[in-house]
Amino acid sequence: MLNIGIIGAGRIGKVHSESITNYIKDARVAAIADPMMNDATRAWAESLGIPSIGTDYHKILEDPSIQAVMICSSTDTHADIAIEAIHAGKHVFCEKPISQDLSKIKEVMEALKGSNVKFQVGFNRRFDHNFEAVREAVKNGSIGDVHIVKVTSRDPDAPPIEYVKVSGGMFLDMTIHDFDMVRYLTGSDVTEIYANGAVLVNPAIGEAGDIDTAIITMKLANGAIAVIDNSRKAAYGYDQRAEVFGSKGQVAVSNDTSSSAVISTENGVTAEKPLYFFLERYMASFSKEVSLFVQAIENDTEVPVNINDGLQPVLIAKAAKKSLDEGRPVKLSEIEF
Amino acid sequence: MLNIGIIGAGRIGKVHSESITNYIKDARVAAIADPMMNDATRAWAESLGIPSIGTDYHKILEDPSIQAVMICSSTDTHADIAIEAIHAGKHVFCEKPISQDLSKIKEVMEALKGSNVKFQVGFNRRFDHNFEAVREAVKNGSIGDVHIVKVTSRDPDAPPIEYVKVSGGMFLDMTIHDFDMVRYLTGSDVTEIYANGAVLVNPAIGEAGDIDTAIITMKLANGAIAVIDNSRKAAYGYDQRAEVFGSKGQVAVSNDTSSSAVISTENGVTAEKPLYFFLERYMASFSKEVSLFVQAIENDTEVPVNINDGLQPVLIAKAAKKSLDEGRPVKLSEIEF
Amino acid sequence: MLNIGIIGAGRIGKVHSESITNYIKDARVAAIADPMMNDATRAWAESLGIPSIGTDYHKILEDPSIQAVMICSSTDTHADIAIEAIHAGKHVFCEKPISQDLSKIKEVMEALKGSNVKFQVGFNRRFDHNFEAVREAVKNGSIGDVHIVKVTSRDPDAPPIEYVKVSGGMFLDMTIHDFDMVRYLTGSDVTEIYANGAVLVNPAIGEAGDIDTAIITMKLANGAIAVIDNSRKAAYGYDQRAEVFGSKGQVAVSNDTSSSAVISTENGVTAEKPLYFFLERYMASFSKEVSLFVQAIENDTEVPVNINDGLQPVLIAKAAKKSLDEGRPVKLSEIEF
Amino acid sequence: MLNIGIIGAGRIGKVHSESITNYIKDARVAAIADPMMNDATRAWAESLGIPSIGTDYHKILEDPSIQAVMICSSTDTHADIAIEAIHAGKHVFCEKPISQDLSKIKEVMEALKGSNVKFQVGFNRRFDHNFEAVREAVKNGSIGDVHIVKVTSRDPDAPPIEYVKVSGGMFLDMTIHDFDMVRYLTGSDVTEIYANGAVLVNPAIGEAGDIDTAIITMKLANGAIAVIDNSRKAAYGYDQRAEVFGSKGQVAVSNDTSSSAVISTENGVTAEKPLYFFLERYMASFSKEVSLFVQAIENDTEVPVNINDGLQPVLIAKAAKKSLDEGRPVKLSEIEF
Repeated sequence: MLNIGIIGAGRIGKVHSESITNYIKDARVAAIADPMMNDATRAWAESLGIPSIGTDYHKILEDPSIQAVMICSSTDTHADIAIEAIHAGKHVFCEKPISQDLSKIKEVMEALKGSNVKFQVGFNRRFDHNFEAVREAVKNGSIGDVHIVKVTSRDPDAPPIEYVKVSGGMFLDMTIHDFDMVRYLTGSDVTEIYANGAVLVNPAIGEAGDIDTAIITMKLANGAIAVIDNSRKAAYGYDQRAEVFGSKGQVAVSNDTSSSAVISTENGVTAEKPLYFFLERYMASFSKEVSLFVQAIENDTEVPVNINDGLQPVLIAKAAKKSLDEGRPVKLSEIEF
Repeated sequence: MLNIGIIGAGRIGKVHSESITNYIKDARVAAIADPMMNDATRAWAESLGIPSIGTDYHKILEDPSIQAVMICSSTDTHADIAIEAIHAGKHVFCEKPISQDLSKIKEVMEALKGSNVKFQVGFNRRFDHNFEAVREAVKNGSIGDVHIVKVTSRDPDAPPIEYVKVSGGMFLDMTIHDFDMVRYLTGSDVTEIYANGAVLVNPAIGEAGDIDTAIITMKLANGAIAVIDNSRKAAYGYDQRAEVFGSKGQVAVSNDTSSSAVISTENGVTAEKPLYFFLERYMASFSKEVSLFVQAIENDTEVPVNINDGLQPVLIAKAAKKSLDEGRPVKLSEIEF
Repeated sequence: MLNIGIIGAGRIGKVHSESITNYIKDARVAAIADPMMNDATRAWAESLGIPSIGTDYHKILEDPSIQAVMICSSTDTHADIAIEAIHAGKHVFCEKPISQDLSKIKEVMEALKGSNVKFQVGFNRRFDHNFEAVREAVKNGSIGDVHIVKVTSRDPDAPPIEYVKVSGGMFLDMTIHDFDMVRYLTGSDVTEIYANGAVLVNPAIGEAGDIDTAIITMKLANGAIAVIDNSRKAAYGYDQRAEVFGSKGQVAVSNDTSSSAVISTENGVTAEKPLYFFLERYMASFSKEVSLFVQAIENDTEVPVNINDGLQPVLIAKAAKKSLDEGRPVKLSEIEF
Repeated sequence: MLNIGIIGAGRIGKVHSESITNYIKDARVAAIADPMMNDATRAWAESLGIPSIGTDYHKILEDPSIQAVMICSSTDTHADIAIEAIHAGKHVFCEKPISQDLSKIKEVMEALKGSNVKFQVGFNRRFDHNFEAVREAVKNGSIGDVHIVKVTSRDPDAPPIEYVKVSGGMFLDMTIHDFDMVRYLTGSDVTEIYANGAVLVNPAIGEAGDIDTAIITMKLANGAIAVIDNSRKAAYGYDQRAEVFGSKGQVAVSNDTSSSAVISTENGVTAEKPLYFFLERYMASFSKEVSLFVQAIENDTEVPVNINDGLQPVLIAKAAKKSLDEGRPVKLSEIEF
């Protein structure tokens, strides 16, 4: 039985706590800490049977019965807490992105050197049933050598402007999942990127210095080319699709819906909209990533999303931003690290 | 160049005339006759370049340059004209049903005995791209031995009550195509039938002694079982589907639409309705059946839909009506012929 | 916190125990009993934290802290245990069918008279996301008045012959779910039935006196007509679909798959097969039915599947068997109850 | 009755001749000329009933009974013949591209000034049922303001290397249709383009100085952004799709197939591949474009694809090539015209 401490009891900290409690036989949430711990959250944590509930994550790091932590705090604190946890000898599951600051990621990498700590990054979409099926088709050779990758990722609605202002920009906040998806689906790194961005959803997003619509093309190390299209607001819901085209064919996945019902009337033949919210769409992937983290610790094997997998999408996002700012394709090698 | 005479210049006579003129290289419409020939129809026939336009089909039968006729007149005249044509040595394409009167069909069969005349019946749906694909999958063994056959056939709207009264009933008028479809898809005869009928679309249809909704089950000679469901009115258009299920799997076809467009909005994900009208849905099949008729004459080979294929659906329809009237399953052998 | 006792620790008893433990906040499994309790099952029960594990269900019925039981034992014991549980004042969730013996169901109904016990029957498919969507479209009027109902229900593989021999026949064992589905989707009772059956999957099933393939048509009290098609073996997996057609249109649901991946190669455009096993396909519905049972107890409201809903499909199955045996349509009123 | 002269009796000249003969009531092919006229082509032309068959297109231009010509000769001759035809007062339907040489297009534009000649360019895909449905959804506001346009266009197989060498490059030869599609679907011009190209299908294409795979992004005058992905070889056939995403939703079209048959076996659920060849896929669009050309002449109205619509895709293709060569986004205004 692996004892896990959860650091941060916001939305994603709650998701992981419930996953572990309900679905993961070999692990339990031994403690949770959040500086904003309140009565409602405490009651929720008690209902899950979490024995230690507090405000200070250091207690978790000091507890010798706890072997692993999940860092679910705000992004700007990820790296420092990760380093402390590594030094305390705890295995670390860190939510994405590790940091918006490349030097911080470097510090985490330094801390990991020579340690026996497992370090996994929370790119949960790799464990979604649809994207796993695409990856499998690519890996098993069904579609041959990869030529073209297409990722569509559109949110059901734009976040509040206050959030946009501190988000680090759409590429680091939203597209970062898609950058990871391109790497995951192809097993190849990105070498060059060109970003076309626009403000078409909400002018206030533009006034805040960000964009809300983008088409981003990439050259990959394996010679393939890729494209991501993003929007902060798809009127019909959360649009999450991918295609990989290769020398022997194509694999594509479409959206999940709440049922397969199709209603035919004089007005048309109507199916359900995509699941609206990322927690509905990706719920099973959150359990699966934690389950694999637990397995990697128990069996002392490689984690499925390592620190380089956490670093690369941040590098790509930085290059995308530079491309957008300078109106030209940018090589990854131009980003200093 | 095969010279064809068209007998009857109603809707289906026009369809065949245009098909031959536009698509069939080895044949031409040499004459057309209709007792109700009027100025509009004459102008239409002239625009197609039909050399002989008249009111009396006997002229066609007497014309030695005409090798074949297509009987597109009203159903009650099919058999008598067919017999005259056979005696005149003309190859015959006869619209479905040959007759609602089994003794008339017997007379046509007698007339054919010993003649060299080709006789084809107008079950055009056998030449529809979708149903051909089902038949092909059954024939080539893709789905193994046939176990279950399902045919859905629903019209976009009920015919006028005046038509219903003289139609011979839904089974002879509408379901007759589906009875043929069951035989075509399986290559097997029907041995027993049970019909469940209802008046749910329009009470006036019931008052006219007919039904407008039905589920009909059948036992086939090859051991399989089949079901047809019919409605005189599908609000979303012309619903024409089939499934065949067997020991190795299933083949199914869905409806054709005017485009593959799918529109996703906050109201749902909406595709196009099925093509509304049988002429849109089955246009290509009308050309194809005539083309194969012409080929059978030219190459002196078997026609694809012979007189027994014309007889069997009438026998099945009679048995279905008897089942509906008597509230019990009826064996085909109970229908006297 | 509702304390539930599980009677029977076979496959379905395990499913319900896990559902309650993992997903149902207001209930817990307080005890489990099975006459065949063995070490493996005991270890499994302990891993769920079930406090009382035994062989004798009477202990559960005698325990005053337990408010409800779930009867997951073999079918022939359902009714007697249900009656004992009712007399002990326990709320009862009884797996389907209540009994294959109508007089036993009558006894349960007698026992319920005057008691305050909630009694729910385990027709879980009513709580499947797809069938719920069909029911909703019917109920909210989207498709108008119901004219035609079609249920396809095919198992991925036939059960062992030993099971077939004691199963009560395909109609009571397998089709019973589909009979319930017709009632659920339409909200209407069945008044007459005609069954067409065949042995096409495995001759040994026929030798055991059963069938493995069927098309069953029904007249409903609301005037609509229905059809079920069944096979004990669909090569491509578990085929569970339904269509309801009405005056304003149609609603249809297709199968669930493990992903939406479509692979296009020179060999064709291939999607995933349906989920193979009923536990995969219907897992969420098992949780939902128990959750609603718990809610009905807590709020003292009607259960969603009551004893009449348990009785009717048995009556229909008896009528279907009589129809098959006698080769004629059978009215439900012919079945003595 | 409009008399049309066909200049060039290669593949596309034959397609247009047959369309006019079979489907267009108000026009006929009065003459055809091809410098390579041979016995087979002459026999084919005679079978269509074309009265004048020759080698010299000047005869057509001199014939006062001919009102319009269709220029179906090799691309390098289009512009010069067009100018001669305009001077002869003939309406002109010119195959795409008008020329690979912008100065030649300018000459044609000059020739048109002050004349009453109709001039239509052969971008037939605008008249495909699927793309028309997308255009209609955009125009009627169903999807709101356009934000993102995606066009997928992949050929079933690469052309011979000898053809590649004289094709003018993939952008002018193949992508030119897609550039037109972006303009057609959005009703907006392209202002800037960035092309990512690769040689992944066949190294010989690279040795010939061309590419076979590309992702091309564009900024449009209306603020939207667009992307085209191309491959010279899709193993599963001719892949022709489009999506337009806007403020109120999305419209998307998929490929046409020869039937809707879906075969489910233990190996998967398999549908048909896309229609393989452009003539199958786009046949109806070829008739429709000519029909609209004839109508524009008869009613003296605007042609649906005018000379500017012919010019713009050539400008875009030139900018795309410059982008590929220089590795940077290129503004349309950088291309001298």
